[in-house]
This record gives sequence, C-alpha cells and structure tokens, in this order.
Amino acid sequence: METYELHVAGLTRDLPVCEVNEHLSIAAFIMFGDVEITIAAAQALLKIAPEFDVIMTAEAKGIPLAYEMARQSGKYNYVVARKYPKLYMKNVFSASVRSITTDKEQTLYLSQDEADYINGKRVLLVDDVVSTGESIRAVRVLAERAGANIIGIQTVLVEGEAQGRTDLQYLGVIPVFNADGTPKE
Amino acid sequence: METYELHVAGLTRDLPVCEVNEHLSIAAFIMFGDVEITIAAAQALLKIAPEFDVIMTAEAKGIPLAYEMARQSGKYNYVVARKYPKLYMKNVFSASVRSITTDKEQTLYLSQDEADYINGKRVLLVDDVVSTGESIRAVRVLAERAGANIIGIQTVLVEGEAQGRTDLQYLGVIPVFNADGTPKE
Repeated sequence: METYELHVAGLTRDLPVCEVNEHLSIAAFIMFGDVEITIAAAQALLKIAPEFDVIMTAEAKGIPLAYEMARQSGKYNYVVARKYPKLYMKNVFSASVRSITTDKEQTLYLSQDEADYINGKRVLLVDDVVSTGESIRAVRVLAERAGANIIGIQTVLVEGEAQGRTDLQYLGVIPVFNADGTPKE
Repeated sequence: METYELHVAGLTRDLPVCEVNEHLSIAAFIMFGDVEITIAAAQALLKIAPEFDVIMTAEAKGIPLAYEMARQSGKYNYVVARKYPKLYMKNVFSASVRSITTDKEQTLYLSQDEADYINGKRVLLVDDVVSTGESIRAVRVLAERAGANIIGIQTVLVEGEAQGRTDLQYLGVIPVFNADGTPKE
C-alpha cells in the first residue's frame, strides 16, 4: 500500500505510507500546505474544546493548527514552544523530558515573557498527531512548570498506541502498518 | 532602550531590544502568538504582491504568515521548507547554501512531491524579517533548484543591511542598534 485514505473533519486525504523500519510503516499526516484541512480541523476541535484562555503548541507541524484555532476562536493569541533557545528570549524558560522510547532528552523553550503569560491561565494544548505522546508530554511539562492550568489536550489524529487515550480529544485515528502495508492489530 | 515602537500594517507593537553582542542590539519581531498582526501583514502584502500560484517559506517563524496569505488569497496552498529531512519525505529534495557571514552551511529540505509541485509554478517567497538575507537566499536556492519560477519575495520587515534592497517588497523597516540603544546610522 502506497497511500492510506483518511477521512477527518469532513474531508478525505490520501496519506503517503512511509516505512519507519522493517517492521513498521506509518501514514504521514502533514497539515503544512493544506489550508482547507487546517480550517476544518480547527473548527471541529473548537466545537468540542473546553473553555480556555490560550492555545499552545510546539514547533513546527502544529503551528498552523494553533494559529487557525486562535484566529477562529477570536482569542487571537497562542504560544509556540520552540525546539531551540532564541535570541529574542531575553530570559529563557525551558523544560526537558527524557523519551521513554529513545532515551533521548527533549527540551522545549519559551521566553520568560511567554512563561509569565501562560502562568495561571487556562491553556489548551494542541497538535496535529499524537503517536507515542512524547511531544505533547514535553509541551505539557513545560506549560505546567510555567504555572499553566492545562484544561485540555486536543489533536487532529491519534496513531498507534495513542488510540483509546482518554486524556485527550481527537477527530480521527490512523493505524500503524506492518511492512507489507497491512494495518497492525 | 528596552523596547522599540514599531508601526506596521496599521498596527503598533513594542519590540523587545535584544543584545546580539557588545556592538549590536536588535529589535525582535516575533509574529508567533500575534494573530492580529499576521492577518494585517498578510493583507497588506497580498495587496502589493505580483500574481502567483503558490506561497513558500522556511520554518519556523514565517509559517503563520505563509499560512495566512494562502488562506486570504483563496489559493489554500503553501509550501514550508524544513530545516531537517523528515520521515514523510520519501525522497528528500534539498539545497545547501554557505553563509557569507558565519561560513556555516545551511540546508533546507522538501519532499520530492513538494519539489515537483512547485516546478514550473509562479512562487512567491515570504518571510517575517529579512536581515542578512541568508535565510531567504537559502529558500530561493532550494526553490530554483526545484524548477520554481520565483516571481517575488515579500517580507513584513527589513532590518539593517537589507534596508533599501530593491529585489524584495516589505511593509516596514527596523533599525539595528548600538549597545547603548541608539540606532546605528
């Protein structure tokens, strides 16, 4: 199988199926470049979202969704956790988590101003796909250290082991695949 | 001086002034998190843009602008050059440029599908700030190698040496500063 037909937020997309290793292939969901699906997913997620003050994501793939949700909600503000400290962060606020699967450490960064901004606010974490959950966990740790009140986690899709997670809201699921292209049970 | 008052696209923002080294400070313009300025800048840039088929930017800071311009223009498509090759890029298309100022090499990546997509199309390159011009040059080289017809380069702001460049369209300028906060001549 070269592609997987995804139905989400009222739209259909053929996702390329990419080999991770000889035992595993995944269907790649890339919102970059696709304004239509970003608008539709943002709308569907906002419909089921709890009340929030600010939307937060981590760079890079979640940025258009976070932007669009901020725009549609009329709140007009969102926070992007960066993968590297930046010059504009006069004082850098960071948090590291160790990956369970790879044993690598992932660190995310905010400016101190951004950390102060989310402190005490109702924060909605969003992303495009939750799979191992490592990325969203890193954002959560960062937001919690900054004093945010995380009132929800939303993702367009869950994949693999994330299917059935009850601590997040999602619009659709994508299977992971064996090397021969059959979905894993 | 702690902040610089920027007027752009009908809006006013106080930019933090950050020290780069003992001789240079810059005003940091961060569109992340600011939906209002993204909408206004996208609108103003589209008003003066040449006719185009697709918008292109490099991750990460230019993504919301590229997204918003694609949305407002009704073309609903844009391309993001990535800083690292990704699993979803079954065949990776890349281009490297050597920085004039740092002698470091910068490489940007597309999937082969994205490279094929922009081949022969009228591509509008966009970014938030052009300063040394290295970033936009890297995107341009990548797009040209993919066969794109680059019909324009647009940025919200130019800074420092980029002021006065006639090969790009911009909405405003920001000075660079001496360590004492006075603008450099």
